[in-house]
Amino acid sequence: MELLEEHILSYGKVYPGNILKVDSFLNHCLDINLLTKLGGEFYRLFGDCGVTKILTIESSGIALACTAAPFFDVPVLFAKKHRTLNLSPEVYTTEVDSFTHGCTYTVAVSKNYLLEGDRVLIIDDFLAKGNALIGLIDLCRQAGAETVGAGIAIEKAFQGGGDRLRETGLRIESLAMIDSMSDDGTIIFRH
Amino acid sequence: MELLEEHILSYGKVYPGNILKVDSFLNHCLDINLLTKLGGEFYRLFGDCGVTKILTIESSGIALACTAAPFFDVPVLFAKKHRTLNLSPEVYTTEVDSFTHGCTYTVAVSKNYLLEGDRVLIIDDFLAKGNALIGLIDLCRQAGAETVGAGIAIEKAFQGGGDRLRETGLRIESLAMIDSMSDDGTIIFRH
Repeated sequence: MELLEEHILSYGKVYPGNILKVDSFLNHCLDINLLTKLGGEFYRLFGDCGVTKILTIESSGIALACTAAPFFDVPVLFAKKHRTLNLSPEVYTTEVDSFTHGCTYTVAVSKNYLLEGDRVLIIDDFLAKGNALIGLIDLCRQAGAETVGAGIAIEKAFQGGGDRLRETGLRIESLAMIDSMSDDGTIIFRH
Repeated sequence: MELLEEHILSYGKVYPGNILKVDSFLNHCLDINLLTKLGGEFYRLFGDCGVTKILTIESSGIALACTAAPFFDVPVLFAKKHRTLNLSPEVYTTEVDSFTHGCTYTVAVSKNYLLEGDRVLIIDDFLAKGNALIGLIDLCRQAGAETVGAGIAIEKAFQGGGDRLRETGLRIESLAMIDSMSDDGTIIFRH
């Protein structure tokens, strides 16, 4: 999506260690007009999939899920990250290794809100190694819900997580796919 | 706001220790139609205040801030919670005691996005003792931004934080104000 690529090139910052900071518009300060357009684009891509629920993960996925949800007219469910394993039996849980934070989280959703028969669109701001996405898919599987696809704002395609998941048959639509980044700030997109 | 009070009475659950669970519509599973109406109500209340930025705190404030922001046509900035004090010098920080989690967080926003002269509307899902709100106001003060008010979904008025802050001159608009809750599920609203 050209608008998002332009924002990445204009406002994103590349840091050593393959870090792309887009906190001026996507995950700290939120450009709500841009996010609404990204939400509409997810609807263009997945609007005919019979989505009944949007699933995301705190914190930075919530904003994008909330700007997409009005197009679909479905609830948003956000999975919560915990550092403990001692959670209520009323939740589905899975383990997610965080690339950004260098630790493992337990990620949980209430069994009351992720239901058998739900047709789930997963939305997140970033896809890199795919760990968060694999965790969310696992929560859907536990609930007997169907993952109809994943809508991602920025995929760091060079980290391979997206392609490995596509090989399993998952439909992933990333609005900007980065094939390479250099420490001098050069960003090459895949089209 | 009658609509929100109805949702609290219909779907909220009271637990011992003055806990009100509204995770079926406000802070885990998100009723996006309801949240959009709450966002519109904040605009009705604060639309003439020259708001330039909406400030909230992760995670559960983000959704409400994002449904309010399109009415105001301003960016959302969400403060991040950290468990460490070793943060970049490029952020304003403050300490917040969490009633829910029984710990103290360092809360931070980037100096790049909270600016001198900003007219800030703070939005959050809950107001109880007021600790998060006091922290967000402190971040605005450090930045030289003006807090024009706070828009809250549910105020647990019996915990006193809102009234103490109103006494300092802060304008707080809570869409539902709870005067008392009992373990048998009875909820009395203030009007």
